Amino acid sequence: MQLTNFDIPKGFSSFVTNLGIKDNTDDFVLVKSEVPCVADGVFTQSLFAGPSVTISRRNLQDAQAQGIIVISKNANVANGAIGVADAEEIIQLVATETGIAAQDIVIASTGVIGRRYPIEKIRGNLSGIGTKLTTVDFEKAAVGIMTTDTVPKLATRQIGNVKLIGIAKGVGMIEPNMATLLAFFFTDAAIPKDVLPAIFRPIIDKTFNCLSVDTDTSTSDSAVILANGLAGEVSQQEFTQALQEIAHELVLKIAQDAEGATKVIEITVDSAIDYAQAKRVAKAIVNSLLVKTAIYGADPNWGRVAMAIGKCEHDKEINQEKVQIRFDDIQVYPYASSDEKLEQLQKIMSKEKVNIHVSLNIGEAAATVWGCDLSEGYIDINGKYST
Amino acid sequence: MQLTNFDIPKGFSSFVTNLGIKDNTDDFVLVKSEVPCVADGVFTQSLFAGPSVTISRRNLQDAQAQGIIVISKNANVANGAIGVADAEEIIQLVATETGIAAQDIVIASTGVIGRRYPIEKIRGNLSGIGTKLTTVDFEKAAVGIMTTDTVPKLATRQIGNVKLIGIAKGVGMIEPNMATLLAFFFTDAAIPKDVLPAIFRPIIDKTFNCLSVDTDTSTSDSAVILANGLAGEVSQQEFTQALQEIAHELVLKIAQDAEGATKVIEITVDSAIDYAQAKRVAKAIVNSLLVKTAIYGADPNWGRVAMAIGKCEHDKEINQEKVQIRFDDIQVYPYASSDEKLEQLQKIMSKEKVNIHVSLNIGEAAATVWGCDLSEGYIDINGKYST
Repeated sequence: MQLTNFDIPKGFSSFVTNLGIKDNTDDFVLVKSEVPCVADGVFTQSLFAGPSVTISRRNLQDAQAQGIIVISKNANVANGAIGVADAEEIIQLVATETGIAAQDIVIASTGVIGRRYPIEKIRGNLSGIGTKLTTVDFEKAAVGIMTTDTVPKLATRQIGNVKLIGIAKGVGMIEPNMATLLAFFFTDAAIPKDVLPAIFRPIIDKTFNCLSVDTDTSTSDSAVILANGLAGEVSQQEFTQALQEIAHELVLKIAQDAEGATKVIEITVDSAIDYAQAKRVAKAIVNSLLVKTAIYGADPNWGRVAMAIGKCEHDKEINQEKVQIRFDDIQVYPYASSDEKLEQLQKIMSKEKVNIHVSLNIGEAAATVWGCDLSEGYIDINGKYST
Repeated sequence: MQLTNFDIPKGFSSFVTNLGIKDNTDDFVLVKSEVPCVADGVFTQSLFAGPSVTISRRNLQDAQAQGIIVISKNANVANGAIGVADAEEIIQLVATETGIAAQDIVIASTGVIGRRYPIEKIRGNLSGIGTKLTTVDFEKAAVGIMTTDTVPKLATRQIGNVKLIGIAKGVGMIEPNMATLLAFFFTDAAIPKDVLPAIFRPIIDKTFNCLSVDTDTSTSDSAVILANGLAGEVSQQEFTQALQEIAHELVLKIAQDAEGATKVIEITVDSAIDYAQAKRVAKAIVNSLLVKTAIYGADPNWGRVAMAIGKCEHDKEINQEKVQIRFDDIQVYPYASSDEKLEQLQKIMSKEKVNIHVSLNIGEAAATVWGCDLSEGYIDINGKYST
């Protein structure tokens, strides 16, 4: 992805380097705003959330932040008190070196769980970083936060003078729940403190929280937005629209790059009783291993979609006699057993993006979720990730 | 498995044949008792349950049955009114041919969803089957109910004169919920009508309902027991124990034969607030794709177990500072990052059965669940099952 200066919000600088966490690739990203930003963040609901999450949640309580640290290749999770102390020490080091107040620093960490940071290496390599900050390089930052990602994930929008950029990482352990993997948004728009969460959180809920690669929720999920106000005010409607578009774009990039994935799956469930029900049914389909493997093999076994809907056993209003299932515009239920329909279906299932549309016909709510197929590649990557 | 006459309960006859549902392997099983039996059944909670389930549930309401029909290679699910009519017609044909009352026949069907039975072939091939019933052949019956199973699954016990046998099938689309895949139990014990469900249902809940291969719940799950009373009364305690043992044995056989599986996983969660919580946490672990792939690759990435526990976000009592995680007798959390421990862990994870033990240390309840690893074989089987 080519970024021009045009796309870069004002007032941000960055430093990306290798601290030697795991290998020689970049594993440390610092993005600093020249002034404190209005900020908001949403985080994993995991009971095993690590110190990066608990500290960042605390530091964002006042809706202000000035810097974001991301450490990749080690999640710093399930390390007890020593893990907390390590995270606090890193924040303090960065604060001292850069002049940002410690409580205005957000930290995120992603990688293997249950291993301590190589803290002595980190201490040595962070020394003097305050002088190394340069004009922000979001492409390098997007690479620096990657773990098993194969491509960096960025998206940008411009609204008048205001620029907005998002970067994200994540390809596995992805079923964000009221939170997300790692995603960071930077803008020079001026957005009031009490407005930003009202814009940001519903967007995350309808984009990142509608994504599932493998039903496993990370202990480190974090999505944070920093708005430094240097470009002045912006139409909140246009800003919301742009943020929504960026978030959606990043979600599709994650689904495309998901571990072992060969196809993106988009499921829309409509005419449900309420949004929660529509999303529950859509998630049941997108998370079904049998649906995922059928799509991988372009096997026109549409009955597995019916099976997956059937798993929502608490949604007693759902009646199999009212349900309709379509792939693109081909209706398969009720009753597409003809060889001709199955051939059409096989063609649809061979596309790079497979759209499944379910109408429950019991209400007026709809939801769309995204996921990917399941291939041998996922097994290969995850049978030997930590070692 | 060698069955001797010794193991066979009195008064059952069977007929197993190929009706031409899909290929030339046996796809029809009829087991008849010479007298009506006390009977009970539990069935899938799927919203897309097929007519086999709805008809069998209805026919067992009086706790009496005399015959079981199993059709494999086609589930007869999501076929609308014609599917119901086909199932009723098959039951009526068998009733007429065998002299069993139609309402005393249980039917189960397993295989692809959304395809109609080849009903004309079935009609032709069922003609005259009343005369073809012979001394019961449970081994042949266990083979006749198979779909992608690679081995038949039987288990037997004897209590004095009383014999008890169970057969089961199932290797994928397995996360039974208040029900199970297909499992049938036959005994010549005399068990009162009001006692059998009290024995049978808790056992199913703690065995089959604690099994998950791939988190997908079948539309056809059925577990049925027939007790014809021909061997007289039995100690209910001993009978319960024997039935529990058989059910457990069949569950392990299913986990061993699960699609693509190379290892059985047993998860015990103890010191939970209640049984439901213990089971919820254990299921979260056994269903995690990242835990399953780590075990497949014998990758000592124990942090994924912590991640999976963390997903039970509604169980707010769980505190990561109180949790302990062990593989066999090796404690990995808190804090086993030493190379020596990871090597020990890798050895444990290379065994054919991997035992994970989690103590929540917040209560006194425990639960054990079973599952299997996830390999390329699962993808291979399920990327091309229907076609």
